[in-house]
Amino acid sequence: MTDTEKRAGMISMFEDLAEEASRLTAFAGNELDRRSEQRPDGCLEEALAHHGAAAYASTEGRLLVKFEGEVAEPLFSLDELEPLDPDLSEAVLLGFTRSGDPRLIIRVRTGAEALPHPVKALDHRSVYQQRLLPAAQLGEVAQGASLLAWNQATIHCGFCGMRTQAGGGGYRRHCPACAKEFFPRTDPVVIMLTIDEKNDRCLLGRSPHFRPGMFSCLAGFLEPGETIEDAVRRETLEESGIVLGRVRYHASQPWPFPHSLMIGCYGEAVTGEIRFDGTELDDCRWFSRTKIRDMLGHPPEEGPSVPPEGSIAHRLIFDWCAGR
Amino acid sequence: MTDTEKRAGMISMFEDLAEEASRLTAFAGNELDRRSEQRPDGCLEEALAHHGAAAYASTEGRLLVKFEGEVAEPLFSLDELEPLDPDLSEAVLLGFTRSGDPRLIIRVRTGAEALPHPVKALDHRSVYQQRLLPAAQLGEVAQGASLLAWNQATIHCGFCGMRTQAGGGGYRRHCPACAKEFFPRTDPVVIMLTIDEKNDRCLLGRSPHFRPGMFSCLAGFLEPGETIEDAVRRETLEESGIVLGRVRYHASQPWPFPHSLMIGCYGEAVTGEIRFDGTELDDCRWFSRTKIRDMLGHPPEEGPSVPPEGSIAHRLIFDWCAGR
Repeated sequence: MTDTEKRAGMISMFEDLAEEASRLTAFAGNELDRRSEQRPDGCLEEALAHHGAAAYASTEGRLLVKFEGEVAEPLFSLDELEPLDPDLSEAVLLGFTRSGDPRLIIRVRTGAEALPHPVKALDHRSVYQQRLLPAAQLGEVAQGASLLAWNQATIHCGFCGMRTQAGGGGYRRHCPACAKEFFPRTDPVVIMLTIDEKNDRCLLGRSPHFRPGMFSCLAGFLEPGETIEDAVRRETLEESGIVLGRVRYHASQPWPFPHSLMIGCYGEAVTGEIRFDGTELDDCRWFSRTKIRDMLGHPPEEGPSVPPEGSIAHRLIFDWCAGR
Repeated sequence: MTDTEKRAGMISMFEDLAEEASRLTAFAGNELDRRSEQRPDGCLEEALAHHGAAAYASTEGRLLVKFEGEVAEPLFSLDELEPLDPDLSEAVLLGFTRSGDPRLIIRVRTGAEALPHPVKALDHRSVYQQRLLPAAQLGEVAQGASLLAWNQATIHCGFCGMRTQAGGGGYRRHCPACAKEFFPRTDPVVIMLTIDEKNDRCLLGRSPHFRPGMFSCLAGFLEPGETIEDAVRRETLEESGIVLGRVRYHASQPWPFPHSLMIGCYGEAVTGEIRFDGTELDDCRWFSRTKIRDMLGHPPEEGPSVPPEGSIAHRLIFDWCAGR
């Protein structure tokens, strides 16, 4: 089998994995062949010169989309981008389609306000929330947005302050002054649904910035020197006062705001008394399975709700409620 | 219950969790109370002034250890560090012991060669490999080493190149020029044992830099925009040519070289033919369960071996072999 055939075999495998919890989250549908071990300098130029190249485009941290009526098209040919003043030297090569065509993401210097009809700039959160793109494209956008954000945060060397240079198709930056190399950053975040099995209930909290009535799983950044399980127990104790015993991994989700990995777990409560401080959370409560079923079944306008489908919080809550 | 009692309750819980796979890896024994949501500016000065404060110390990227015969003591009082010219403004507050004493890590300006008897500087890998410290201290060193490395890599702002200032007890850096904030970095790495269930065998490879005869799990950095499961499948396909189906999380491990999180998984092989390119791996093979049992049972000098106890690779291999 050739590499391409193997890769195609792997993608067809995805159909058998349709029930994998991670594949049921938004941003998880990326099927590009990243060829991560074949990113020599020059691979970007080669991809840009390829007749099948197409690119996502970004300006001022927002994604460019062509609207044809209700249909949103986020892929541009390089010719289409030309009038928008693309920064090709900082382009990122995301990977290759099944037929071998390169997919890139390119920042353009034309600002959001100056874009020609029918191109609009949308923030990434809206692209996700409005379900504008099919799953595979949404996954490619997540990859691209994370890489653009990381490149922009690494324009200067953290060791010596000099300007860095992009390489490896946008997957590496090099400091010509002190010779340090930098690689993309992904921030692991633990997000967990705490379960009190004896009382058949789960713990949800709400951040002050949530929309009214919405409750979700607790979450926080994993810290240096922690296991996933210890991070889940620490965050739960700090935010809610609940002591957890066993922790079980359930699913993960790429979260491009700007470049996180959500690691979704279930935690087994061994205490019941909630304590929260009012700054991190403005509410935190136990919810019975019956109540959760009710919250999942009605629109958010009609009372307490949980995060929308596609979010890993929804996945954790739904799967517990359904007994998975 | 007070916070301290809750925290103590959580730590006593760890005894019930002794069999949790992640707790059986090296660097996972950290039991400090990090109080991650209570790190105001000023917390470092308060900790340094505390009568019970003690610190790990580092010079030139190595850990300072006092040797009393064979016994290694890595904790110093601030008075003991004074003659070594400690950089207190860049100290990191790791957390608090059960009795409320602060634990820190501090870089000293005295170089490794100039340390007074009986202090020596050891690289972190040797501290781990020689099993010099109890599990809890090794975990604290992992946390501290990762944070020192991150702080040093973030001395300058990646956006504008100006010098940053430490804050939040060493958990935050601020750019006074462009007002950007920076937080510690942890790099997720997937490490996986591929299992061919039908033939009761597993896949191991060896890097050219491994000691002779040692084989281990395949591994690689998770990329932006990937789920854990997809990263496991991609890395396995790229390195070995094997197509994976289902992926199952098993355990995680803090890996302070310089600041990774190892995410250990099992992958289900759906093809059998191995292909590797000779640069990333210099060998890659299927091993029967019988052969693995043999490799686990003899010292590395006596033939093909697996990584030592404490590593997550060992954990994955051992637990599969034992049918866990």
